[in-house]
Amino acid sequence: MIQEFIETRAYSEQLCKPLQTEDFVIQPVEFVSPTKWHLAHTTWFFEVFILTQFKTDYQLYNEDFPYFFNSYYEAKGERVSRAHRGNLSRPTVDEVFNYRTYVTQALKELLTSSDKKEILNLVEIGIHHEKQHQELLLMDIKYCFGHHPLYPTYVSNFDEKSSEDATQNWLSIQEGLYKIGHQGDGFCYDNETQAHQVFLQDFEISNRLVNNGEFLQFMEDGGYKDPLLWHAEAWDWIQSENIEHPLYWRKNEDTWKEFKLNGLNPLDLKDSLSHVSYFEAAAFAQWKGCRLPTEFEWEVAQDLFSWGRRWEWTESAYLPYPNYKKAPGALGEYNGKFMVNQKVLRGGSAFTSKNHTRKTYRNFFHPDMRWQQSGVRLAK
Amino acid sequence: MIQEFIETRAYSEQLCKPLQTEDFVIQPVEFVSPTKWHLAHTTWFFEVFILTQFKTDYQLYNEDFPYFFNSYYEAKGERVSRAHRGNLSRPTVDEVFNYRTYVTQALKELLTSSDKKEILNLVEIGIHHEKQHQELLLMDIKYCFGHHPLYPTYVSNFDEKSSEDATQNWLSIQEGLYKIGHQGDGFCYDNETQAHQVFLQDFEISNRLVNNGEFLQFMEDGGYKDPLLWHAEAWDWIQSENIEHPLYWRKNEDTWKEFKLNGLNPLDLKDSLSHVSYFEAAAFAQWKGCRLPTEFEWEVAQDLFSWGRRWEWTESAYLPYPNYKKAPGALGEYNGKFMVNQKVLRGGSAFTSKNHTRKTYRNFFHPDMRWQQSGVRLAK
Amino acid sequence: MIQEFIETRAYSEQLCKPLQTEDFVIQPVEFVSPTKWHLAHTTWFFEVFILTQFKTDYQLYNEDFPYFFNSYYEAKGERVSRAHRGNLSRPTVDEVFNYRTYVTQALKELLTSSDKKEILNLVEIGIHHEKQHQELLLMDIKYCFGHHPLYPTYVSNFDEKSSEDATQNWLSIQEGLYKIGHQGDGFCYDNETQAHQVFLQDFEISNRLVNNGEFLQFMEDGGYKDPLLWHAEAWDWIQSENIEHPLYWRKNEDTWKEFKLNGLNPLDLKDSLSHVSYFEAAAFAQWKGCRLPTEFEWEVAQDLFSWGRRWEWTESAYLPYPNYKKAPGALGEYNGKFMVNQKVLRGGSAFTSKNHTRKTYRNFFHPDMRWQQSGVRLAK
Amino acid sequence: MIQEFIETRAYSEQLCKPLQTEDFVIQPVEFVSPTKWHLAHTTWFFEVFILTQFKTDYQLYNEDFPYFFNSYYEAKGERVSRAHRGNLSRPTVDEVFNYRTYVTQALKELLTSSDKKEILNLVEIGIHHEKQHQELLLMDIKYCFGHHPLYPTYVSNFDEKSSEDATQNWLSIQEGLYKIGHQGDGFCYDNETQAHQVFLQDFEISNRLVNNGEFLQFMEDGGYKDPLLWHAEAWDWIQSENIEHPLYWRKNEDTWKEFKLNGLNPLDLKDSLSHVSYFEAAAFAQWKGCRLPTEFEWEVAQDLFSWGRRWEWTESAYLPYPNYKKAPGALGEYNGKFMVNQKVLRGGSAFTSKNHTRKTYRNFFHPDMRWQQSGVRLAK
Repeated sequence: MIQEFIETRAYSEQLCKPLQTEDFVIQPVEFVSPTKWHLAHTTWFFEVFILTQFKTDYQLYNEDFPYFFNSYYEAKGERVSRAHRGNLSRPTVDEVFNYRTYVTQALKELLTSSDKKEILNLVEIGIHHEKQHQELLLMDIKYCFGHHPLYPTYVSNFDEKSSEDATQNWLSIQEGLYKIGHQGDGFCYDNETQAHQVFLQDFEISNRLVNNGEFLQFMEDGGYKDPLLWHAEAWDWIQSENIEHPLYWRKNEDTWKEFKLNGLNPLDLKDSLSHVSYFEAAAFAQWKGCRLPTEFEWEVAQDLFSWGRRWEWTESAYLPYPNYKKAPGALGEYNGKFMVNQKVLRGGSAFTSKNHTRKTYRNFFHPDMRWQQSGVRLAK
Repeated sequence: MIQEFIETRAYSEQLCKPLQTEDFVIQPVEFVSPTKWHLAHTTWFFEVFILTQFKTDYQLYNEDFPYFFNSYYEAKGERVSRAHRGNLSRPTVDEVFNYRTYVTQALKELLTSSDKKEILNLVEIGIHHEKQHQELLLMDIKYCFGHHPLYPTYVSNFDEKSSEDATQNWLSIQEGLYKIGHQGDGFCYDNETQAHQVFLQDFEISNRLVNNGEFLQFMEDGGYKDPLLWHAEAWDWIQSENIEHPLYWRKNEDTWKEFKLNGLNPLDLKDSLSHVSYFEAAAFAQWKGCRLPTEFEWEVAQDLFSWGRRWEWTESAYLPYPNYKKAPGALGEYNGKFMVNQKVLRGGSAFTSKNHTRKTYRNFFHPDMRWQQSGVRLAK
Repeated sequence: MIQEFIETRAYSEQLCKPLQTEDFVIQPVEFVSPTKWHLAHTTWFFEVFILTQFKTDYQLYNEDFPYFFNSYYEAKGERVSRAHRGNLSRPTVDEVFNYRTYVTQALKELLTSSDKKEILNLVEIGIHHEKQHQELLLMDIKYCFGHHPLYPTYVSNFDEKSSEDATQNWLSIQEGLYKIGHQGDGFCYDNETQAHQVFLQDFEISNRLVNNGEFLQFMEDGGYKDPLLWHAEAWDWIQSENIEHPLYWRKNEDTWKEFKLNGLNPLDLKDSLSHVSYFEAAAFAQWKGCRLPTEFEWEVAQDLFSWGRRWEWTESAYLPYPNYKKAPGALGEYNGKFMVNQKVLRGGSAFTSKNHTRKTYRNFFHPDMRWQQSGVRLAK
Repeated sequence: MIQEFIETRAYSEQLCKPLQTEDFVIQPVEFVSPTKWHLAHTTWFFEVFILTQFKTDYQLYNEDFPYFFNSYYEAKGERVSRAHRGNLSRPTVDEVFNYRTYVTQALKELLTSSDKKEILNLVEIGIHHEKQHQELLLMDIKYCFGHHPLYPTYVSNFDEKSSEDATQNWLSIQEGLYKIGHQGDGFCYDNETQAHQVFLQDFEISNRLVNNGEFLQFMEDGGYKDPLLWHAEAWDWIQSENIEHPLYWRKNEDTWKEFKLNGLNPLDLKDSLSHVSYFEAAAFAQWKGCRLPTEFEWEVAQDLFSWGRRWEWTESAYLPYPNYKKAPGALGEYNGKFMVNQKVLRGGSAFTSKNHTRKTYRNFFHPDMRWQQSGVRLAK
């Protein structure tokens, strides 16, 4: 566990190596957080949920930091509102790194001196929490650079590609009762439980993800102009936001390009589509005469195809499983309070840290969000 | 069918008897429509979906009316935007009644001369569509009068009460496979199909609805002040909108009153709670240590309790049933395009027209909406 | 005075003759008020400022009406917010007319029994106040009908024309000290005082107003597309509001039309331009290599040209004259509190009631407003 | 001129010495610009208005920078919108300093090799432009630090104080014709011309500025709660923005403090009031039974009192002087296009660079702005 903790902490810092100090500060839109905020918030999590509870005589690194770096835990007190994270130049990046070092060291000491199950469980959550923020950090840097007029490069050989050259086939699953949700001893979030039976009808699911070339056909066929393909809210959204293509596609004199963390590239028609909203995913499926799979269908079928390079939109709303119980106290806010108006995504992405996702993992976003590396797999 | 058609048309007009001309015109908020708009829109539905398709040499009453009275059917062309319905003083109320008479007469003639199944099916949909708008008309009048500083009375002996004096008991349902959705020959909307099997876990559901007295306890216990009871979006909503009580409760020098269509009344603690949002329903359930039933649980259990005086919020998101198929063309817009970001309500209300609801009926609203007569039944 | 009072009251009601009941109710935008509100608010003014102060045993017509029909007098208590005037279907139009009759009768009685100077002064203000609202009533009806898709006719022979066929000439005024502001015994508003000396430089002012043909040239020369002609705020305004022509011009297959109270007409190139904002007036003047006159220049030159059919934008900000004193109490709110961010207009319009305007009259609107019958006279 | 240029450039950089890299980047509100933007924009001004026009074979430092660092000059092409200045982490601070060095060097070379009057005039404007931005830079840093929860210190001995211990006296000026506007050969902006005669009535003006103690009395007397003291727009503004005190006053357990660039201080009752809006200045004057001076009164009286530590609000709207002519081309956008909806301030402030202001200098802001160091001098 110590090893995993140290590696995780180090990996967050390694992700920042290519950045300039200025890149750590900005917040171009409310749902994006500054890099230095991610670095500090993941540290705050260990400090407030573990060190202040279990480490004798632990001194907060700075008494004001809980106010700065709490994200949304009402049970943990007042905090800087999300929209203002990018307005604060202090603490500086250097000080945030000092804060990390201080907390990492204190936690190592604690882990060395105690192996209480309760502590280990919380550290495990903290590690997974930090891995989630590693993905968010990359999503956010991509947003910052992809909305900068000059499209800075993060890392020139960063690989976001999801290579699926295979012919598209339909995999058939028979109706029946299936067991859904997390089983066994491994780590999972509370939203993956309780494991329970679900009855599924016969369905077919694609062996591969939709690729850019297919989505380009949808666009060229007027997909963004036909209201009958879209949910009513989706249609309002594409009108008011002037949505005409996936988030990082850019048209340059009749040629489509796609921004990735390695810079602006010619659009790769064979690469899996990414950075579309649920609204776009559903309209595309409608245009194809198909639909999106439910999260249960996906979970049942997932060992028949390869996955993990794109988060895959499902038709399922993000809802509690039967007999779901929130954790008591602040940790109960981790998942449960978001279970309305969001859609479940399954799989993982090229930004997901290793050992972080699994077949029962439930990611979730509002249906208009698309700065996560979301893709589409069809069902029918 | 002719009889049902004539009665339905007449009932809409009867509902308007207590109104002054000025009451037909106003639209105090975007989701409320003017009474004259409801009267005309339901007429437009018969005109555009039936008369112009099937009646030889049918002349539109007025060529501009389709533009005025289309609600949201993209396939039926441009229309007055929803927010502007209350800005139009013309056509006048008298002219709208003339329009109704003209279309009612033409449809009677058509029905007398033809019994084509296709026409009868469309008339049946038109009748149910008008019944839905009868309920909306009452909801909207209640909103207009309930937000007028003097609380005008609609009808002094109008009865909204839902009397359930019974002791609260928990009804137990055993886990198993259950058939959900509409079966048989009777009318239903497309969203109630296909009938399909669902596996349910053991659950318990209350024999009666939550009443005003119980919700008052929630309020007095600080329910609206405790963020841990609320979804994150719900908490933002009650903060930004200053929500502190159900929609039509009014505090008058320490005494709670409730506005109903018969005017402002002392709050009846035994009457079933109504006009709460899903957000409030879920927070109340959380406070009670319970939850809301899913729509499937409700449907399976519904013959064990009496229902039909309050629409009952469920935990279920409004999603298509397996193998759901939208109708082709404009009628396909009736339901399918709203299947995102909404919650299902089951039951019916004191405003529901007779023969309109049924056990498989799926009503749906956004989770912050509460001008419908929505109530709460607990499950666990 | 009684005669003038009776005629003014009657004229307001005469203006409503062509309207349908529904037309009295709507408020399509916040700055427009419903006709029934104008009828009641002018009545409230007499009731609250005079009858309740001076008439023995006067009974309010309805104790709730002061809340409904106060416009902006903070000193007179709470009121319906401006944006909600159109949400209230009650009191009905008939009841508002009854209210008018009651108050008119009571005031006639008071005037018959008393000739106190203080009362007469207040009645005179009330008469002029009602005349102002007669103009607003026509402006507001024009707005309602001019934004209705079918352009209803108010009165088919209503004449808005301002006929100035004369050749354009420049009238020269020599530099010197001039007396500005109201002098003598006649009625004026407090904002026209104190009369005072102003030093003016040599200037020239046009003998006639800009006409539609000249403004069309501005448009055809790309006037709305050239940022260098516009104030910075004006440019933001035309971008965000998509302003491309005067308020009531409509393009119908390459032909320009203009909506007037007599309906939609072919654009009359010789008619004086109207319904432009200060922003447009200033951009036009810039394009012409001229400028707008100051209100002082206008007042000094006004007997050299005919005026009174268009309110004329000036370059002057609406500011207090030297030694300006607000009236004490609520009447002090009549003018003074609007003396920021507004521009002065001089003259009068085809909607102005007789005996209402005069050479020292100062009208004022925000620079983006154009539902008043505003025109342009150039200076240099 | 070379000396003045070099000193001005160096002073901008000196102002940045106390800042951390992160402080250069943020833009907490649209009207505040990032420090690095000020540094680059003032450099762009020299590059685009002078070097590219007059220096043979001049190479732009970076072809993209004109897009990044144009502020509002429509004639100079597209640009990053003001609201997005804080979203751009690149170019970095270091690169901006390199850009400054490059342009400063190139301009020194140009000035050494040419003494063309046209160039010198433009350099003089560029110098004054940079001095204006030095003041803005301090205003913006004060805003960033004054809205940071921890109130960072910029420079611990920075002196913002305006010491006026003198008893308040009224200085009397007699009515008559006075010459207003810039005369002579020294530098001035176009908005200070043409010099012209203005007739003033008798007036009195205070020998000193209003101090914090006097404003605190206004607050304690309910000044922010009495609508009759305020302009109508001002009242709306204080309601919607919850304005209850000057911008940088903070209440800490019954004790008032004031944030300055040296940190949070106890409120100094003798120090001149600063950081109030025109709205607050006018309400305070109303409460005192006085008014604000016009800009003409101020200019006539200014040699009778000391000034230059607070910008002083006047009652005058920002309007062109008689016979004002905008410069041709892009420089014509410097002042003229802002001459609507703003109020004139006269004087200078503790943030004003030396040799920058003068008795005819006209500063201007919207009436709700208060992040400039604005104060109040009364007149009557």
